[in-house]
Amino acid sequence: MSGFVSLVGAGPGDPELLTLRALKRLKEADLVLNDALVTSALLELAPQAKRFFVGKRAGRHSIDQDSIHKLMIRAARRGERVVRLKCGDPFVLGRGGEEALALREAGVAYEIVPGLSSAIAAPALAGIPVTHRGLASGFAVVSGHAPSSYEPILASIAPGALTLVVLMGLGQRAAIARTLIERGWPSATPAAICLGASHPDASTWTGTIADLPTTNIDSELPGILVIGAVVSLHDVIASLPEAPVSDVRTS
Amino acid sequence: MSGFVSLVGAGPGDPELLTLRALKRLKEADLVLNDALVTSALLELAPQAKRFFVGKRAGRHSIDQDSIHKLMIRAARRGERVVRLKCGDPFVLGRGGEEALALREAGVAYEIVPGLSSAIAAPALAGIPVTHRGLASGFAVVSGHAPSSYEPILASIAPGALTLVVLMGLGQRAAIARTLIERGWPSATPAAICLGASHPDASTWTGTIADLPTTNIDSELPGILVIGAVVSLHDVIASLPEAPVSDVRTS
Repeated sequence: MSGFVSLVGAGPGDPELLTLRALKRLKEADLVLNDALVTSALLELAPQAKRFFVGKRAGRHSIDQDSIHKLMIRAARRGERVVRLKCGDPFVLGRGGEEALALREAGVAYEIVPGLSSAIAAPALAGIPVTHRGLASGFAVVSGHAPSSYEPILASIAPGALTLVVLMGLGQRAAIARTLIERGWPSATPAAICLGASHPDASTWTGTIADLPTTNIDSELPGILVIGAVVSLHDVIASLPEAPVSDVRTS
Repeated sequence: MSGFVSLVGAGPGDPELLTLRALKRLKEADLVLNDALVTSALLELAPQAKRFFVGKRAGRHSIDQDSIHKLMIRAARRGERVVRLKCGDPFVLGRGGEEALALREAGVAYEIVPGLSSAIAAPALAGIPVTHRGLASGFAVVSGHAPSSYEPILASIAPGALTLVVLMGLGQRAAIARTLIERGWPSATPAAICLGASHPDASTWTGTIADLPTTNIDSELPGILVIGAVVSLHDVIASLPEAPVSDVRTS
């Protein structure tokens, strides 16, 4: 019998935001290969599996991409059910395409189990719709990891028509803000930082592009940037009184 | 006791691609308000709930947005647990922002339960990563519903840097292809149509932008367009032999 690899998106972190299929695959897994942002609460859903951390921590490569491919291929050839668990969605800046290609080239059966991308879920959980009638009928998602990843893309988008979502761009926020202003985005364009989406300590900062470089973010949680008129909805909603939670009928 | 509204994304259609939280809310719901693309398999997950169809069918408005708001608000004030169930994600071209705002203004407690957007999940399930090292480090999602929704956005994106995903654009594909070519996109740019993502009859067409206007799509299933170099990965993977499914150990 041959094994099988599931390339699974874990979503933003809260186990309740896993898909039913992801949970099923975790429960049946013999081996889980997980990234840095995958939480212990998620890993506990695969109690019978061996677990192997293959993430990268703050620029330090713990294991290279080729070795991840080899681990998956070898385990599948031993007949194991492998879950490659990534935060967010495996195909949004997650190298899932490279892994799918490597598995197919090795003749290993695999499937894609999409997960909630933080690009959409993090703003949504902060009350910011990436599209909104009259404000934006589209959005762009960009890696903010390094100037080489975001500069060509920011250079190809004219100011204002799209909501801009920047993943992994917290550390580059000053440079990203400068680039946008140089490219003609009004410095008063609303901007948000969504920290720790779906985490109990999640928080949202809002301001403008001009404020981004000097914003002090004192958090270890991952954060994403959202830039555009839709951010103003966060503030409109926050200005209205919240229905008292104690009155609410939930189970 | 007051009621509660959950604005829930159902994902692309397969019930296994619901989140655990979405399933929980459906099971507890007193009332489900659903869109046209929500399938009966999904609705069966809320067996005890009253169900109310509030979708739009092929341009014909069955119920206006204001009436949807009033239905949700009235039911919550009666103490009901309401699930507003939308295909995909409520905040991706889904008017979830308008509904959140209306609920907050009415003093009704609500939450957002993000769902898998077809913008990412449909290409992923077809083996097309919206980003891929060396091909695209970002993507844009656009409504293809009408020229007024996509023209300003396509005019603001330079050719080639981003993968372009067009939702609800199947009927406008000829006009969209012409617009892109006029704006300098090479007519040989790879293009895909992903039909019925996660549905048992799902299929994928691939070709180029130049082929889009004359492609005959004989399907009632919803489809999305994906445009950019990443589409070529679908063909690379499809050209390699698939591991025989009969050998695969799955439960």
